[in-house]
Amino acid sequence: MVITLQPFADIDAVRRALVARGLWVSLVRSAQGAPSHFVVDPGSSPAEPSELARIEGVASVGAAPSPHPRVDAQGPVVDVRGLAVGGARPVFLCGPCGVESEDQLQRIAAVVASAGAHFLRGGAFKPRTSPYAFQGHGSEALRWLRRTADRHGLRVVTEVLAEGDVPLVAEHADLMQVGSRNMQNFALLKAVGRAGRPVLLKRAMSATVAEWLLAGEYLLVHGAPGVVFCERGIRSFDPSTRNLLDLGAVALLSQVHRVPVVVDPSHATGRRELVGPLSKAALAAGAAGVMIECHDDPGGALSDGPQALLPQQLRDVLASLGGTV
Amino acid sequence: MVITLQPFADIDAVRRALVARGLWVSLVRSAQGAPSHFVVDPGSSPAEPSELARIEGVASVGAAPSPHPRVDAQGPVVDVRGLAVGGARPVFLCGPCGVESEDQLQRIAAVVASAGAHFLRGGAFKPRTSPYAFQGHGSEALRWLRRTADRHGLRVVTEVLAEGDVPLVAEHADLMQVGSRNMQNFALLKAVGRAGRPVLLKRAMSATVAEWLLAGEYLLVHGAPGVVFCERGIRSFDPSTRNLLDLGAVALLSQVHRVPVVVDPSHATGRRELVGPLSKAALAAGAAGVMIECHDDPGGALSDGPQALLPQQLRDVLASLGGTV
Amino acid sequence: MVITLQPFADIDAVRRALVARGLWVSLVRSAQGAPSHFVVDPGSSPAEPSELARIEGVASVGAAPSPHPRVDAQGPVVDVRGLAVGGARPVFLCGPCGVESEDQLQRIAAVVASAGAHFLRGGAFKPRTSPYAFQGHGSEALRWLRRTADRHGLRVVTEVLAEGDVPLVAEHADLMQVGSRNMQNFALLKAVGRAGRPVLLKRAMSATVAEWLLAGEYLLVHGAPGVVFCERGIRSFDPSTRNLLDLGAVALLSQVHRVPVVVDPSHATGRRELVGPLSKAALAAGAAGVMIECHDDPGGALSDGPQALLPQQLRDVLASLGGTV
Amino acid sequence: MVITLQPFADIDAVRRALVARGLWVSLVRSAQGAPSHFVVDPGSSPAEPSELARIEGVASVGAAPSPHPRVDAQGPVVDVRGLAVGGARPVFLCGPCGVESEDQLQRIAAVVASAGAHFLRGGAFKPRTSPYAFQGHGSEALRWLRRTADRHGLRVVTEVLAEGDVPLVAEHADLMQVGSRNMQNFALLKAVGRAGRPVLLKRAMSATVAEWLLAGEYLLVHGAPGVVFCERGIRSFDPSTRNLLDLGAVALLSQVHRVPVVVDPSHATGRRELVGPLSKAALAAGAAGVMIECHDDPGGALSDGPQALLPQQLRDVLASLGGTV
Repeated sequence: MVITLQPFADIDAVRRALVARGLWVSLVRSAQGAPSHFVVDPGSSPAEPSELARIEGVASVGAAPSPHPRVDAQGPVVDVRGLAVGGARPVFLCGPCGVESEDQLQRIAAVVASAGAHFLRGGAFKPRTSPYAFQGHGSEALRWLRRTADRHGLRVVTEVLAEGDVPLVAEHADLMQVGSRNMQNFALLKAVGRAGRPVLLKRAMSATVAEWLLAGEYLLVHGAPGVVFCERGIRSFDPSTRNLLDLGAVALLSQVHRVPVVVDPSHATGRRELVGPLSKAALAAGAAGVMIECHDDPGGALSDGPQALLPQQLRDVLASLGGTV
Repeated sequence: MVITLQPFADIDAVRRALVARGLWVSLVRSAQGAPSHFVVDPGSSPAEPSELARIEGVASVGAAPSPHPRVDAQGPVVDVRGLAVGGARPVFLCGPCGVESEDQLQRIAAVVASAGAHFLRGGAFKPRTSPYAFQGHGSEALRWLRRTADRHGLRVVTEVLAEGDVPLVAEHADLMQVGSRNMQNFALLKAVGRAGRPVLLKRAMSATVAEWLLAGEYLLVHGAPGVVFCERGIRSFDPSTRNLLDLGAVALLSQVHRVPVVVDPSHATGRRELVGPLSKAALAAGAAGVMIECHDDPGGALSDGPQALLPQQLRDVLASLGGTV
Repeated sequence: MVITLQPFADIDAVRRALVARGLWVSLVRSAQGAPSHFVVDPGSSPAEPSELARIEGVASVGAAPSPHPRVDAQGPVVDVRGLAVGGARPVFLCGPCGVESEDQLQRIAAVVASAGAHFLRGGAFKPRTSPYAFQGHGSEALRWLRRTADRHGLRVVTEVLAEGDVPLVAEHADLMQVGSRNMQNFALLKAVGRAGRPVLLKRAMSATVAEWLLAGEYLLVHGAPGVVFCERGIRSFDPSTRNLLDLGAVALLSQVHRVPVVVDPSHATGRRELVGPLSKAALAAGAAGVMIECHDDPGGALSDGPQALLPQQLRDVLASLGGTV
Repeated sequence: MVITLQPFADIDAVRRALVARGLWVSLVRSAQGAPSHFVVDPGSSPAEPSELARIEGVASVGAAPSPHPRVDAQGPVVDVRGLAVGGARPVFLCGPCGVESEDQLQRIAAVVASAGAHFLRGGAFKPRTSPYAFQGHGSEALRWLRRTADRHGLRVVTEVLAEGDVPLVAEHADLMQVGSRNMQNFALLKAVGRAGRPVLLKRAMSATVAEWLLAGEYLLVHGAPGVVFCERGIRSFDPSTRNLLDLGAVALLSQVHRVPVVVDPSHATGRRELVGPLSKAALAAGAAGVMIECHDDPGGALSDGPQALLPQQLRDVLASLGGTV
């Protein structure tokens, strides 16, 4: 935003009025005769140009249009098969990291449902850093997810990795997940958008909030009925947690951009003992829900076992969040 | 930590047992005949070496001693002039960014005290990125702080920037603040430690948790009776908030290292509208309290006005945190 | 790597021997009777386990196998249609950011060829942060690229964004580019690997060197005949350059991992005046070549005009790098 | 910079003219009747406001004055006891990490001098992350440095950690070093400035170029006759090098801000085998010299042994840089 001053404006008075509204501004003076301006930093509180234009001494206010009109128009609630994500009650998406067998899924889904969760999560297609790691059971796992979720009255959220898999995943999932590594895989975003399902869009490792919102815009432009954002920790220099949970971004999405955002404290920290406190913190910051990994035998999990909660731990965490039925 | 296996151990069974305890491990095989090991990643859940040594198939467990024994021994509560920081009730440290005049301080202290805060904050010596910016009113401001705090039943927390100022600041402050830019100014840490006052130690812009704890160790080794850590946001690639609030580190300090940590959401985000939600989130993550900037005329503040709460906003935030008297 | 000590080893003598070889080590002591170890930090100089095992006082040396055996086996040179990338002479890949018309391409290719470059670069499919930005001319642009390159004796390097486009891009390109945003788009990596063409693999915004090498492993496992790595700057907190060029990673890939790596100083800095000095620096650090954007009318470019060199600037830079025919 | 357009300007034509000059710009439209503007991104090529004002369709150009006029006025060469740092020939600053004994220093200084270096480096006061690590031999080490350097015709560069030590260090050093951890220790900057000696100012772990230049401004405002900047690697998420060497910032300081900057590849990477290639790269990027750690017995070094070059390695590296006498 650029705020242009009147020729003989009291520059300090205008600055006071802008700062008082929570704006970080820099003064830019023009050569003789020409008007001076305040440039507003992007990290400022939101402000209405028309309201700023009424400040004494301000000649005009220039603003760029929002680069993501459809995200702005979406609103804070996304309906996923009758459930309001972003509504009055927090939403819980729980399950194993990867779907390992129908049996495993059955046991865990029972826990997840009884703990009060709304979604069964689990990876049918797994994005793995190494080509030699377990890549998921694919389409078979999708069927297991659907059957198991239905049996327990849960919704299905699962990741889609490849454009070619979009129709199959759309058929089985209630909420299609786009993972961190694909947040700017624009070909996938377009294909997922066209599938016409609500999408859970994870933030890339080092995406800015602006880039994340634009990825959401891709989905909406191409047909997605709703986008739920998911913060799962960003890349960090500190090995003491697996990633770095950015609840400031969560508060920003929730309070300022007014879009639903859920938090994945399991991937964000990789530390089981921090999942409870950070889930609470996420909801306090404005998250619409939390996505938590759990397993009945974490030691035997094919991926991410160290961060999975045990059944009783999951029950305790969800209970503490007000999630029991 | 290094976990050495017995010659014919069932490697997968040991791995399962370790992962089940929340440990991220990598297998390291030795050449023929020699034992193999699991190396434990620093981002793992805490574990007792003696307990791991009892796992079937484990020959021995090697661990480095803690590099910060005095921090470990301190405990989760620091007494500051009779107030338990890290105790059952959250602590609030509020006031202007910089001390601008005794009058200003009087007006703001009245608000701070009536809102239920415990400390009056305010910079007498200001660390400023530019040599041309307001550098603080120095020793005079220290006297104003002391007098005003006493009048309102508040404690004083204020930053010390120079070794030479340590005695003067120690004389006026109940809690001496070491700022982000000085977290590894070891000469200052030693001098502040020797002053014998409790210290509020802000995290440096990109310090790891390990480095931060070691800075605390410097203070304790040199005589500080207690260290309260303060997370104020780290450097980020995203201009949409001033810094990036790392509540994962807060949870880690609070839940795993068991030291008191307060959060400064004002500097962490630079956005007034996020101070409330992130204060709640901080307490939920385990923070012992929050440090919040406020001003009765933020537009006229000599520094950081855009992030300062107005009096009524401060009252509302503290009330929502359960802080009213 | 874990270095296990003999029962009565002189620990300091072993440490000296390890440090003398450029290893950063931490001592890990076991409980009574059990052996102690040195754990070697990943940022250490390379060392042969068998050689370390001969140090007096060392009982055994454990090492994890390389996670990317095919990358290790590839060697420092990749042949692209008869040109050795990673050979004795640096390779230059130049052209516009996006292919805008066949005419534009003709004019620029003439400059690129006469300046001594080996490849014509240009985006037919453009990954754009906003869904509303120019997305490339697609298959038509591929045909223009091929025809124009052939006319000027140049090879074609161009990005593939979607699995579905892989056959078409493979038909027209000599070197298929996988962009930063797709470095961990594993579905795309598999499809591109299967196309059987050499690949230029750009580093993701905040990928570690280990992750980047594993992405290369995906390509090789799935059939790529060779992978050329490309550093194009990583995400940074400093707005004074567009990204942050990591020539340490280039030196590491080139000197230690012995794989060919080219550098894209245009995207790395976004600043035309830095392209020359950083191209020289890249070659000095061990890069196999540089990828430089140029345009005969940067002001009219549909993307990234500010960073494009003008024709004469390109000639001067390549001449200074020893690239004229 | 803000470029204000005339009422009926051809916006696209102005944009083309700006982009053609290497400027990244965003259009900001005002409400009806009021002028529109282009805001120039800080990562743009330098441009003269008065020249931009002559573009057809531009009404006026507003620019903030430089925040560091004294740095801008300093020029690209700093004289240190008769040696031009930033002049035609690169400058080499070599020696051990820490000064361990006068004997050690003698042996290493002989190597350093015969290899063609200009400065003997060595820490008398050592900033150490842990309070239990070797803290340096202090004032005694300063005397050893001075005597040894004089004997070998070398200049002395050494770090000052504490305000109280400034006079003593100023007495013994030709170039006073302010370390990374103290780049924003403003009390120290003021004291060092007042000492009247040229200063080597290392960049903080995650300082922006703008903050670094402002730290230099502090030194000059308070009396330093010249500031040489030193890039030593910034904090990184990648453990494969100790820090992340930012040669883009070096090119920016050297080519755009026209100040002398030296590079410390030893701390930047922590890897001996990368010191040679990155030293060459640093000079190619525009560095005025390099600072390299060396030791005749790295295994026995009290700090940073793994990154120290052996005597012959130092001779080879400096010879390859054109540094032999």
